[in-house]
Amino acid sequence: MATAHPGNEPNPGMIFETLMAFQRTAALRAAIELDVFRAVGEGPGDVVSLARNCRASERGIRILCDYLVVIGLLAKADGRYHHTATSGLFLDPCSPACVASIARFLGNPALIEPSQHLADIVRSGHTTLDGQGSVEPDNPVWVDFAHSMAPMMAPMTAPLGQIVLEGLAGPVRVLDIAAGHGLFGIEVAKQHPQARVVAVDWAPVLEVAKANAQKAGVAGRYETLPGSAFDVEFGGPYDIVLLTNFLHHFDHATCVGLLRKVRAALKPGGRAAALEFVPNEDRVSPPIPAMFSMSMLTTTPAGDAYTFRQLEAMYREAGLERIAAHPVPTGPHTVVVGYAG
Amino acid sequence: MATAHPGNEPNPGMIFETLMAFQRTAALRAAIELDVFRAVGEGPGDVVSLARNCRASERGIRILCDYLVVIGLLAKADGRYHHTATSGLFLDPCSPACVASIARFLGNPALIEPSQHLADIVRSGHTTLDGQGSVEPDNPVWVDFAHSMAPMMAPMTAPLGQIVLEGLAGPVRVLDIAAGHGLFGIEVAKQHPQARVVAVDWAPVLEVAKANAQKAGVAGRYETLPGSAFDVEFGGPYDIVLLTNFLHHFDHATCVGLLRKVRAALKPGGRAAALEFVPNEDRVSPPIPAMFSMSMLTTTPAGDAYTFRQLEAMYREAGLERIAAHPVPTGPHTVVVGYAG
Repeated sequence: MATAHPGNEPNPGMIFETLMAFQRTAALRAAIELDVFRAVGEGPGDVVSLARNCRASERGIRILCDYLVVIGLLAKADGRYHHTATSGLFLDPCSPACVASIARFLGNPALIEPSQHLADIVRSGHTTLDGQGSVEPDNPVWVDFAHSMAPMMAPMTAPLGQIVLEGLAGPVRVLDIAAGHGLFGIEVAKQHPQARVVAVDWAPVLEVAKANAQKAGVAGRYETLPGSAFDVEFGGPYDIVLLTNFLHHFDHATCVGLLRKVRAALKPGGRAAALEFVPNEDRVSPPIPAMFSMSMLTTTPAGDAYTFRQLEAMYREAGLERIAAHPVPTGPHTVVVGYAG
Repeated sequence: MATAHPGNEPNPGMIFETLMAFQRTAALRAAIELDVFRAVGEGPGDVVSLARNCRASERGIRILCDYLVVIGLLAKADGRYHHTATSGLFLDPCSPACVASIARFLGNPALIEPSQHLADIVRSGHTTLDGQGSVEPDNPVWVDFAHSMAPMMAPMTAPLGQIVLEGLAGPVRVLDIAAGHGLFGIEVAKQHPQARVVAVDWAPVLEVAKANAQKAGVAGRYETLPGSAFDVEFGGPYDIVLLTNFLHHFDHATCVGLLRKVRAALKPGGRAAALEFVPNEDRVSPPIPAMFSMSMLTTTPAGDAYTFRQLEAMYREAGLERIAAHPVPTGPHTVVVGYAG
C-alpha cells in the first residue's frame, strides 16, 4: 500500500497504521456507497463538484478523497481528484472491469462480525458463527457472493477454461460444484460448444447462475442440481468436475471425502479441477493467498488456505493422480488439477 | 505495509486488500490481547509452544501468526516465529519502548463505531456521535487516552521540551492544556528545574497526570486545574502554554477563540506551542498526519488535521507572532510555536 515501510527498521508508525487499518476498509466502502468513483471519473474533480454529485458535505468529501489518495485509490493534482490506474479501471462503475460490487460480499456484516472477537476465535480455533459458519446450509451470504463477486472472478474464467479443457474434444460433460455465479462452468461451455454443464449449489444461488448462463447464451447446455455438494447425487460420469473456491471452507478429512465422491463421478481419465488460494509452503507468501487463511479462521469451523502439498495429499488420498498446480496469471488463484485413473 | 504495490499499474488486488484491511487491525488487537508478542519473545516460537503459552488453539495461533508475518509484524523461519525489529522493540511487553497499550485507546469501541456509518458521516460532514463527539465534556475516552497513549507520546516529549524551553532561563511558568497523561508538561519540569506546571484537563484525567508527575519526581512543581480549557480561568501569566493533540478536535473559529484566551494568559514574549499532526499543504502527505483527518471526521463535529498555513492563520488571528513549525524527529507530529507580543 502507499505507506510502505522497510521491515528491518523499527517503526512504531507501522503499529499505529495497523491499528487504524480498519479505516481503509471503511473509506473504500463509503466511497463506493457514495458513488465517489463515478463522480471522479466524470470530473472536474474539485471538492465542490464532487460533494454536489455525491450529495454529500464538502468537509466529508475532502477528507474521504484525501484519505483515498493516501492509500493509493485516487490521485490529486492542483486540488482536484483524479483516477489512479487502479481506481479508473476497477472502481469506476463506467468501466466494464469495475469490481466495486465485491464490497458487498466482502463487507457482509455476517462475515465481518466474527473479526470483532478474533482473540476468542484464536483461543477456540474456530469461528464464533453458529454451526458450520459461512458454509451452514442455505446461508444467504452465498446469494450475495453469486451476485457481487462475479466481476472479481471474471478475469480468471478464461485461463481456467483453457486449463480444464486442455486436450479434450467432442462431447464433454462438466459438473460445476458450488457454482455460485456460475461463471466458471459457463466459460467452459462458451469455450467448448459440445460441453454440457451441471451446476450444483443452493437453489437460490443457482437462480443467479441460471440467469448468467442465459445472458451468456449457453442456457440450452446448462442444468442445475440444487442442494449440498455433500448430499446430492452427482450423476455423471463427467469429463470435468470444477470445485471453485470451495475446498478452503473444510478440513482435510472433509475435503478428501468430497474428492472421493468427485472421483467416483468422473469418467476414467476425467479431471477434477479446484480453483483455490494456494499459499507457498512457507504459508506467508504471496500476501493475498497467505492472508486468506484468516478469513477461513474467522468464518468457518476448520477451513484453511491449503498449500499445494496439502492439496496434493488430499487428491492422492481420494485416488486422484497426476496432480498439478496451474497458477492463474490473471488473479491470485491457482487451479489444482488431478485425474481419475 | 508488506503488500506494497506500485500505484501506476492497475491492480485489483489492492482493492481486495483494502476491503479486507479491517483484518489487519483485528489481528494486531487479538495478538496483543493474547500476549502473542511476549510469547514470541520468550521463544522457541513454534506453534505448539505459542499456543500453550497463549492458552489458545494451534490452528488459531498458526493462522494469526502467519497473518502477522504477512503484514510485517512478525518474522518466520523454519516454521518458527520471531520478532521483527518493530515487534521486538514496540510490541513485546518486555521492551521498555513497548507501545502495545495504544491498542486500547485506538480500539476504543466508542471511537471506532462511527466508522461503520462513514457514508452517512461524509454526507452530513460530521460525526454520528452525540454532541461534541469525542470532545464532549467529561468523555471517559480521555481517561483511556491518558492511560494508554503515553508510550506512543513518550519519544516526542524530549524534543518538545527542548523546543519550548529554548532560550529560557530562571523561573518558568507552564500551562499544559489538555494535559492527558501529563507527559509533555512533566518533561518540561524535568528539563528545567525552575519550571512550575499547571495542568488543565477533566478531573479524572488529571488523576493520571498527577500520578505520572509523582513517578517523575516533579509533583512538587505540578498543579492541576480541572475543567474545560474553554471555561476555566487559566491564571498566569505564563511563559509557555502547551496545547498538545488538542486543536485538531475543533474548527478554525473555535481554535482562534482558544488561542486568544491562551495569548491573554501569556507573559509578553511568552510562547504557545501546539503539538499537532500537520500534513503538507497538499493534505495527502505524509501518510500518518494526512490520514489523521479521517479520525477527526468520524469522531468530531468539525475537527481536522490542519496544515501549517492553516495553523499559522489561526495563530495570527489570535494575535500571536513569529510562528514557526518544528517537526518532531522522533514521531509523526510537528510543534507549532507562536509568541505573544
